[in-house]
Amino acid sequence: MTNMDATLNSAAVPAPDRALVEALAVANRILYHEGVVDGFGHVSVRHDRSPAHFLLARNMAPALVTPADILTFDLDGQALDAGDRRVYLERFIHAEIYRARTDVVAVVHSHSPSVIPFGVSKTRLQPIYHMSSFMGLDVPVFEIRDSAGSGSNLLVGSPALGAALARVLGDRTVVLMRGHGSVTIGSSVPQVVFRAYYAEMNARLQSEAIKLGAVTYLTAEEAAASAKTNDALVMRPWELWKRKAMKLE
Amino acid sequence: MTNMDATLNSAAVPAPDRALVEALAVANRILYHEGVVDGFGHVSVRHDRSPAHFLLARNMAPALVTPADILTFDLDGQALDAGDRRVYLERFIHAEIYRARTDVVAVVHSHSPSVIPFGVSKTRLQPIYHMSSFMGLDVPVFEIRDSAGSGSNLLVGSPALGAALARVLGDRTVVLMRGHGSVTIGSSVPQVVFRAYYAEMNARLQSEAIKLGAVTYLTAEEAAASAKTNDALVMRPWELWKRKAMKLE
Amino acid sequence: MTNMDATLNSAAVPAPDRALVEALAVANRILYHEGVVDGFGHVSVRHDRSPAHFLLARNMAPALVTPADILTFDLDGQALDAGDRRVYLERFIHAEIYRARTDVVAVVHSHSPSVIPFGVSKTRLQPIYHMSSFMGLDVPVFEIRDSAGSGSNLLVGSPALGAALARVLGDRTVVLMRGHGSVTIGSSVPQVVFRAYYAEMNARLQSEAIKLGAVTYLTAEEAAASAKTNDALVMRPWELWKRKAMKLE
Amino acid sequence: MTNMDATLNSAAVPAPDRALVEALAVANRILYHEGVVDGFGHVSVRHDRSPAHFLLARNMAPALVTPADILTFDLDGQALDAGDRRVYLERFIHAEIYRARTDVVAVVHSHSPSVIPFGVSKTRLQPIYHMSSFMGLDVPVFEIRDSAGSGSNLLVGSPALGAALARVLGDRTVVLMRGHGSVTIGSSVPQVVFRAYYAEMNARLQSEAIKLGAVTYLTAEEAAASAKTNDALVMRPWELWKRKAMKLE
Repeated sequence: MTNMDATLNSAAVPAPDRALVEALAVANRILYHEGVVDGFGHVSVRHDRSPAHFLLARNMAPALVTPADILTFDLDGQALDAGDRRVYLERFIHAEIYRARTDVVAVVHSHSPSVIPFGVSKTRLQPIYHMSSFMGLDVPVFEIRDSAGSGSNLLVGSPALGAALARVLGDRTVVLMRGHGSVTIGSSVPQVVFRAYYAEMNARLQSEAIKLGAVTYLTAEEAAASAKTNDALVMRPWELWKRKAMKLE
Repeated sequence: MTNMDATLNSAAVPAPDRALVEALAVANRILYHEGVVDGFGHVSVRHDRSPAHFLLARNMAPALVTPADILTFDLDGQALDAGDRRVYLERFIHAEIYRARTDVVAVVHSHSPSVIPFGVSKTRLQPIYHMSSFMGLDVPVFEIRDSAGSGSNLLVGSPALGAALARVLGDRTVVLMRGHGSVTIGSSVPQVVFRAYYAEMNARLQSEAIKLGAVTYLTAEEAAASAKTNDALVMRPWELWKRKAMKLE
Repeated sequence: MTNMDATLNSAAVPAPDRALVEALAVANRILYHEGVVDGFGHVSVRHDRSPAHFLLARNMAPALVTPADILTFDLDGQALDAGDRRVYLERFIHAEIYRARTDVVAVVHSHSPSVIPFGVSKTRLQPIYHMSSFMGLDVPVFEIRDSAGSGSNLLVGSPALGAALARVLGDRTVVLMRGHGSVTIGSSVPQVVFRAYYAEMNARLQSEAIKLGAVTYLTAEEAAASAKTNDALVMRPWELWKRKAMKLE
Repeated sequence: MTNMDATLNSAAVPAPDRALVEALAVANRILYHEGVVDGFGHVSVRHDRSPAHFLLARNMAPALVTPADILTFDLDGQALDAGDRRVYLERFIHAEIYRARTDVVAVVHSHSPSVIPFGVSKTRLQPIYHMSSFMGLDVPVFEIRDSAGSGSNLLVGSPALGAALARVLGDRTVVLMRGHGSVTIGSSVPQVVFRAYYAEMNARLQSEAIKLGAVTYLTAEEAAASAKTNDALVMRPWELWKRKAMKLE
């Protein structure tokens, strides 16, 4: 029995599935190797045996995360087993989305580069192809000034700000954060990685398409039908990305 | 005799040339390493000893395809030797183009990134330099709403949609698919890989050129003359790409 | 005792901290691997035991710098220990900024690609997200024609030009150089590398954002609050970048 | 004595300096690894002991060239020692520039991607920073229709077309070829590689700068002064690029 297991047991939270912890570590590395996160950004998953908890790495670059770096948090954003390890300032993004959205199993927060411009302009991020159909008709933007005024440090560093962000997310799959980044949610670790990757790709392609003239976006019906089809395919890129990310060890 | 051979013999289809199967596996990897496909997309070749059949990988990421993953399909899109292996939902793209175009030997379907914007805007993809002269004067766009209505999942998932796509392709070498990707055809595996790569490059360069002002495109005569010259040169990049793609094993 | 130590002792300048010299060599490599410098560009640090001196590599590509290539300079830009090794033509950038700004501990000069266009147009570089909040409201441009006329070689190749550049920098963190590049300053080697990287990223993202329409930039208050938060986080990407840069040895 | 030496002796042309042949092979690889050439493009050098001859690889992808692939050509574009090896269709680019410009020692022909758009629009390629100051005030465009009509295959496949291209180049360092690529000349192999790389970089940066508004270009005097300074620095990136290109063997 490791220290982590001991700590969790003492808090009456069962240890998470080992395979889930490993998948979360892999997801951290994939997101780096595929250009969604750099030294910043994070991915979490809801605890498989305790829905009021979630798993998230300690404060570190995602590309370097191993299973030993994964901590367990409650929905107030408190780590059960951090010890003297630092935690992410924005763990409340995850905590409050898991609280507000019982259907959500996994969350990515990133500053993926092509998405940032859509968060600071009036142009809405919208799906231009089937790979990003999970975004629906378009993507809302969280303006932190509405909650924290015009002098904040832009971080979602409290439960109140996390809850405000979750309200703008609503029942969507992606929310942009003005002057900061974005959050993507999903029903599994591979799915949320798929979505974070293709949200970034859509932003890049939409930005180019706009320069070519009027754009034909997906209809709501196309987006819904296509998203359903794609949900069965998320393991295909995951296997590829996993092999790449782990080979570079 | 392998299982695959046995299965094919029982269906009275001869085994394909081993070198062709290997070239197709290499093509899958090249298309990934050169940025034409990601976890999605596929490349096929007409069966060398049975023109009413074609070879295509099982449902998987192209970058991971080996000769053992190549299956044989008939022109109705039915696999002869899949066993319990899953097949691509869009195998009908290949089947119906091989049916409609007896001159076609190889087909690539991809979501290559620079091409996508041209499929959702009114700006036509046109060759701006000799490397993409195989595209002729310009490239048609397949609007799936014309065949499947405005609520489809955007995939060419039936023989009827494959046939509709083949009709828009007509006697061209490339067809774009609105909100989805593109299809490139060729008379050999190396040629279709060359074309898929340079269609992507042309899209990227044309997009930049348009921003600089009025563009001088190739004339139909220039395109025809240049394409003929280039057809003799397709093995040059193939040798390079093959070495790169296989070295990363 | 190495030759370098001997030389420095004879000039009555103590040897710098070994860890600082090693960090500076690492910084050179990181800046190359993260796309801030190519064969040109340089990074320096103020001498830890002699504030009137600074450390800077000999004239060579930053990606190849090792601790043995680090020289010690005085604030007139004279190397104490170069021997027959060539020095950078633009060492005066560093010398004059260290002279003018006693708070500055580290300086990067680069031609990072996305920043260059902002130095030759009227569009000001401004922070569009929290990662570049250290830039404040916007970034000044040094027009060398104001100091050297319209026929210079564009290099800051003298103390006078270095002082002119330092005056335009003022109390900012970044200054652009028209037709040339930029300079970023910081209070530590990891911080200046962080800033040089995110100045480049901001330029790339701002350029895209402008094409999408009116941009919401950070307020002065947001920039100040965010910069303060980020200053505590500069070691996170540093650890990642260091591992990458040194692995490629 | 190798076969090549024998052949050259029989034609009364001395064998070239071995180091020059090796540098030319390295240049081929650098140009590929730095994104100037792909499977196509070529670089040549004037024969060091016979100014009426030049050295150029046989018809193959530049990234794969070794010293054994280097052939000797006369100024009519005839190879002395090709044997049964195929030669580049466009060797006349090199031959006619060496004939017309006795000061030229090395020539690169490429389809480097950012330059192509400037060859098909009315926007002139102009130096926006010191690294591309060798281009002077701006860069001419060779319109092959003026020499070969509107139905050519776009290739410079004859002495007459090579001579026409050389006339448009005039006394410049770079000439663009509409719908095709560009040619860069230099006084050494490292210098021509430097120039081909920074012509590509300038195109990429100028394209971005134009989107930001009116651009301040180098004056003729700035370009001349800067180019003179840079000429002394071409070995700095060469050493870096060489190490990278040869490491990937």
